Amino acid sequence: MNIFGRFFRVSLWGESHGPAVGALIDGCPAGIALQPEDFCHDLERRKSGQPGTTARRETDRPVLDSGVFKNRTTGSPIMIRFANADTASGDYDLINKYPRPGHADLQAYHKFQGFNDHRGGGHFSGRLTVGLVAAGVIAKKIIPRVKFKATLISAGGSKNIGSSVSLAVVAGDSVGGLVECRITKLSPGLGEPFFDSTESLLSHILFSIPGVKAIEFGDGFAAASMSGSRYNDPIVSLTGRTSTNRCGGINGGLTNGNELGLRLAIRPTATIGQEQLTIDKATGKKAAICFGGRHDACIALRVPVVVEAACAIVMADLYLAHRTVNGTSLKQIKL
Amino acid sequence: MNIFGRFFRVSLWGESHGPAVGALIDGCPAGIALQPEDFCHDLERRKSGQPGTTARRETDRPVLDSGVFKNRTTGSPIMIRFANADTASGDYDLINKYPRPGHADLQAYHKFQGFNDHRGGGHFSGRLTVGLVAAGVIAKKIIPRVKFKATLISAGGSKNIGSSVSLAVVAGDSVGGLVECRITKLSPGLGEPFFDSTESLLSHILFSIPGVKAIEFGDGFAAASMSGSRYNDPIVSLTGRTSTNRCGGINGGLTNGNELGLRLAIRPTATIGQEQLTIDKATGKKAAICFGGRHDACIALRVPVVVEAACAIVMADLYLAHRTVNGTSLKQIKL
Amino acid sequence: MNIFGRFFRVSLWGESHGPAVGALIDGCPAGIALQPEDFCHDLERRKSGQPGTTARRETDRPVLDSGVFKNRTTGSPIMIRFANADTASGDYDLINKYPRPGHADLQAYHKFQGFNDHRGGGHFSGRLTVGLVAAGVIAKKIIPRVKFKATLISAGGSKNIGSSVSLAVVAGDSVGGLVECRITKLSPGLGEPFFDSTESLLSHILFSIPGVKAIEFGDGFAAASMSGSRYNDPIVSLTGRTSTNRCGGINGGLTNGNELGLRLAIRPTATIGQEQLTIDKATGKKAAICFGGRHDACIALRVPVVVEAACAIVMADLYLAHRTVNGTSLKQIKL
Amino acid sequence: MNIFGRFFRVSLWGESHGPAVGALIDGCPAGIALQPEDFCHDLERRKSGQPGTTARRETDRPVLDSGVFKNRTTGSPIMIRFANADTASGDYDLINKYPRPGHADLQAYHKFQGFNDHRGGGHFSGRLTVGLVAAGVIAKKIIPRVKFKATLISAGGSKNIGSSVSLAVVAGDSVGGLVECRITKLSPGLGEPFFDSTESLLSHILFSIPGVKAIEFGDGFAAASMSGSRYNDPIVSLTGRTSTNRCGGINGGLTNGNELGLRLAIRPTATIGQEQLTIDKATGKKAAICFGGRHDACIALRVPVVVEAACAIVMADLYLAHRTVNGTSLKQIKL
Repeated sequence: MNIFGRFFRVSLWGESHGPAVGALIDGCPAGIALQPEDFCHDLERRKSGQPGTTARRETDRPVLDSGVFKNRTTGSPIMIRFANADTASGDYDLINKYPRPGHADLQAYHKFQGFNDHRGGGHFSGRLTVGLVAAGVIAKKIIPRVKFKATLISAGGSKNIGSSVSLAVVAGDSVGGLVECRITKLSPGLGEPFFDSTESLLSHILFSIPGVKAIEFGDGFAAASMSGSRYNDPIVSLTGRTSTNRCGGINGGLTNGNELGLRLAIRPTATIGQEQLTIDKATGKKAAICFGGRHDACIALRVPVVVEAACAIVMADLYLAHRTVNGTSLKQIKL
Repeated sequence: MNIFGRFFRVSLWGESHGPAVGALIDGCPAGIALQPEDFCHDLERRKSGQPGTTARRETDRPVLDSGVFKNRTTGSPIMIRFANADTASGDYDLINKYPRPGHADLQAYHKFQGFNDHRGGGHFSGRLTVGLVAAGVIAKKIIPRVKFKATLISAGGSKNIGSSVSLAVVAGDSVGGLVECRITKLSPGLGEPFFDSTESLLSHILFSIPGVKAIEFGDGFAAASMSGSRYNDPIVSLTGRTSTNRCGGINGGLTNGNELGLRLAIRPTATIGQEQLTIDKATGKKAAICFGGRHDACIALRVPVVVEAACAIVMADLYLAHRTVNGTSLKQIKL
Repeated sequence: MNIFGRFFRVSLWGESHGPAVGALIDGCPAGIALQPEDFCHDLERRKSGQPGTTARRETDRPVLDSGVFKNRTTGSPIMIRFANADTASGDYDLINKYPRPGHADLQAYHKFQGFNDHRGGGHFSGRLTVGLVAAGVIAKKIIPRVKFKATLISAGGSKNIGSSVSLAVVAGDSVGGLVECRITKLSPGLGEPFFDSTESLLSHILFSIPGVKAIEFGDGFAAASMSGSRYNDPIVSLTGRTSTNRCGGINGGLTNGNELGLRLAIRPTATIGQEQLTIDKATGKKAAICFGGRHDACIALRVPVVVEAACAIVMADLYLAHRTVNGTSLKQIKL
Repeated sequence: MNIFGRFFRVSLWGESHGPAVGALIDGCPAGIALQPEDFCHDLERRKSGQPGTTARRETDRPVLDSGVFKNRTTGSPIMIRFANADTASGDYDLINKYPRPGHADLQAYHKFQGFNDHRGGGHFSGRLTVGLVAAGVIAKKIIPRVKFKATLISAGGSKNIGSSVSLAVVAGDSVGGLVECRITKLSPGLGEPFFDSTESLLSHILFSIPGVKAIEFGDGFAAASMSGSRYNDPIVSLTGRTSTNRCGGINGGLTNGNELGLRLAIRPTATIGQEQLTIDKATGKKAAICFGGRHDACIALRVPVVVEAACAIVMADLYLAHRTVNGTSLKQIKL
């Protein structure tokens, strides 16, 4: 269902070419300073504009319809809305006839018996992440000491990201990318037993970001080839500091107080300028189609701030959980 | 929290050296044939016994305390319980003094202010997966046409798994492994919009299995280096069949009807026979400790059936969801 | 938290005098015919205007920001928004100084450390029910065969409702009322075991409607005085038809296919024109205050359609649940 | 679904005549002193034995299968199990042929296509409340300052409870009863906005107790006949103390710090010794049947401790919620 989080709960709604998209946030503590300008920095980082990103330009001005009074959160649900302005839906008539390879066009058609909004992928669109970034801004404010830093470290297999993207643009093609995120100043003991391990919650929200196809924590896949004597991080302090950090800051699903590190593979954008093989939905016949439309040659360029937001939402949720139950001695429960 | 699933809901409980461990399953349809013998095959696959697995021997005999009547599920919650018999808790006194590197010992101690059951890792133990496997047996029965096949494809970086594990046993060390899972005969359109993508749900439950540190779907991390023209799978049928399967059977978070393929990295077992650096919880001083106890030199050997169970739980849940809302035309809702 | 429902999920947001209020609906099946006009009938019934209702006039024009395409639901979340227009917040400056007896003013102040929006009660306002009514309109469309009929059967203890309300208006006072709801054409077997009994779910959502202080099903409180031989409804058909209906159509938490009947007590509106005793928040001193502002002399006049909406939301949810798990033979699960 | 609570989560499982019944509790804070003897007092109060209660005798000895170590809760799930010993299932063969009026026999049969365990009502049985009482014992320990006091104040319409029950026993009949519960020493501001009002949560769990058919808070149904000038409770202190308490300690869904008072109607036990009209499930023909079996002539006699447990579960949950989000100033969130 379209909600994430147990304490700090985020719902996303909207379609790429509908009237608006947004986020509804429930469970945010009262008293957090919040005004529209606070969203600018992260929303700017998500915007298109640099080479390799779509020609669609949205102002992404957040409207706070509820939950904020005198520039402070009130404790009731926060509704953030973004109007869709620069929609060119005509570009997408073609995909209603020919589903795009690599996209959810055909699956959504089957799932919703053709009632889905196909324009720009409808609800299955990167456009939805604008609400995620906005929710992330608020999450970061709940836990201001924790720092999130996500970076695109390669595109198309090269660390020379600009060159790689330029080549794709010229070829009417697209490229994937590798995003790394580092989270510092985390308390030890975050994460819940068994099903809600820290890795479980982070991967759950991160795989909801369109395009993510793989994730690893710490040494990740390399761990499968290692011996325990090499992989185990020696403990050097009572708070859990370790001299190496192969586990990526998580032991047994709980944060250990060291830097939390993860890497994500972002697949190349599905919509490309080259001809691709697909079928005609009406006739079932094969067809070779070139999908125009505006698109990002490397969506990974815009993903890092979305990854930070997703991680911040999980961590705000875990800090709120931590205060509640397991991480609290009984005497702290004031009656 | 310790529950997974929206329609087919699994709760796990128990500690490694407590009286019992088990699973509570809520939301299972009525009328499924079920008797204790049905669990044998998968429970056997999870058991220790082969070289490289722990010396601890549990009979793993499931007791069905509720939800089954005349060998059929009744529609009310199913309680499955496994007594813990072969516990040798004395082995674990050491870890109450010296937390094991790579384990959750120190984090659980901080999180629960020392009230956690430290014996054998307590609730943070692979022992809990016996309940997960049992729940998986029931999940598989809900969707009998769907096939799950998980395999350990390498250990310690070598496809010659036996050799790799033998070397670790001799050295008093451990090794990690790579597990692959393939799911066939899936309907297209499973998965829910945005937060409950198929990858989100699968990764959530799979990262709850102790030792999992990375996951990739289809070509996974390789996608980060590819171009769209190479990565996109050409569509060759109206139902969504593709001529290649780089995306691992999932587009935009929805199954596309092709084989669903994923790979997992399992870290080497944290408990090893070699000396490791840690601290003395009482004094905070550094110490070099050799942890005895019984343990698996390669826990990955026992993981494949657990992975199948976890995947089956997600898929049973998605099939039940599919019937409910999005995947159903209104006329199918009988009033 | 601010969400209700397991399959058909409704979130309400907004404040009485904020920019807007609304509902986010997640889990609505695709393909339901829906356009703004469909909301008119029920929204009109909720509106003020008749004697005894507030002088505040809102157009209550629903804006569908997402989830609807070509006048059909798409299967993705539906955002319905209502602008607040006729706000006269100055009227409420007084309550920021003197909390109103019978209202949540003081409790909300304590709960949110003074950060709550006090204007018109903020989030604690009957204004929020406009979103509930809108969600109810959609719920009714999911189960069109089921009929909901709620009526105000008395006000201020009199069946002569008009007279009773007129007297209150003249006196600058308010009156409570008794609302009855009858639901017909329900299938037997709706409701879930133990915690999610039909009475549990209905009472949960009905007690969220501001002003509801009591509920009874069927003969309700009278049952406490009866003998079993008189109370038990004789069964007269295999489908569960009974010759009397003292239980109100629910046995053991499950619908029995007979008419479902319930009654609700609505307390008198808290805000009245007469002088009341309260305290000064700044000084803690007692004060006798006359709260002006616009208010309903008998809020119960506007409640019936809200009750119908709440009941429809529960029933749509139970029908969707019914299709999923317990109420379905396995052979109906198409793979 | 069979789980209640957001932070302190209780699942109930079992059937009246199955091997065992019990409760799984997730989210209990670590460090609470807990041993089997702690359950004795409340379990004794729930037991049969006094005149008017069933001849079935269960020892109700709780087995703590997980979540407790060295007589302290560990923070992981607590499994409490009660063996069913004194089952006389033969008594219930009749109800498999003839569904009892007033019971869920026929509805459960339809809902689960005949796969339900019919013996003693199966999962639809007061036997399940033993687990609820056990969970309530733990809930009370989380909030030791809060006091719960439930009493049976009348049976069969008479305050002379013994006489009323005796008459029913002699007549082979049963009687309903009125239960009152008072909760004192509650903090103000408990309860969540809109859907999770204090009344909503209390009524949700209370209507899951078999036999409850009506609930009112404070003056309850009488409020429907009152004027606001009479009903509103004058505020006399900054913390919210009022000079009257017509609202039952709850304003706008939030506790106001005064005594919380509620009343419940318990219907007469459905199983009686007199002849009743029902149908033959096999033939659909009407039949007049006298159901023997062991049963309570006045189940209300055993309900008060169950009501206390249910209320304690809600209040423990609300206190834990309170600490998390809305009721907390940001500076209290330690990072």
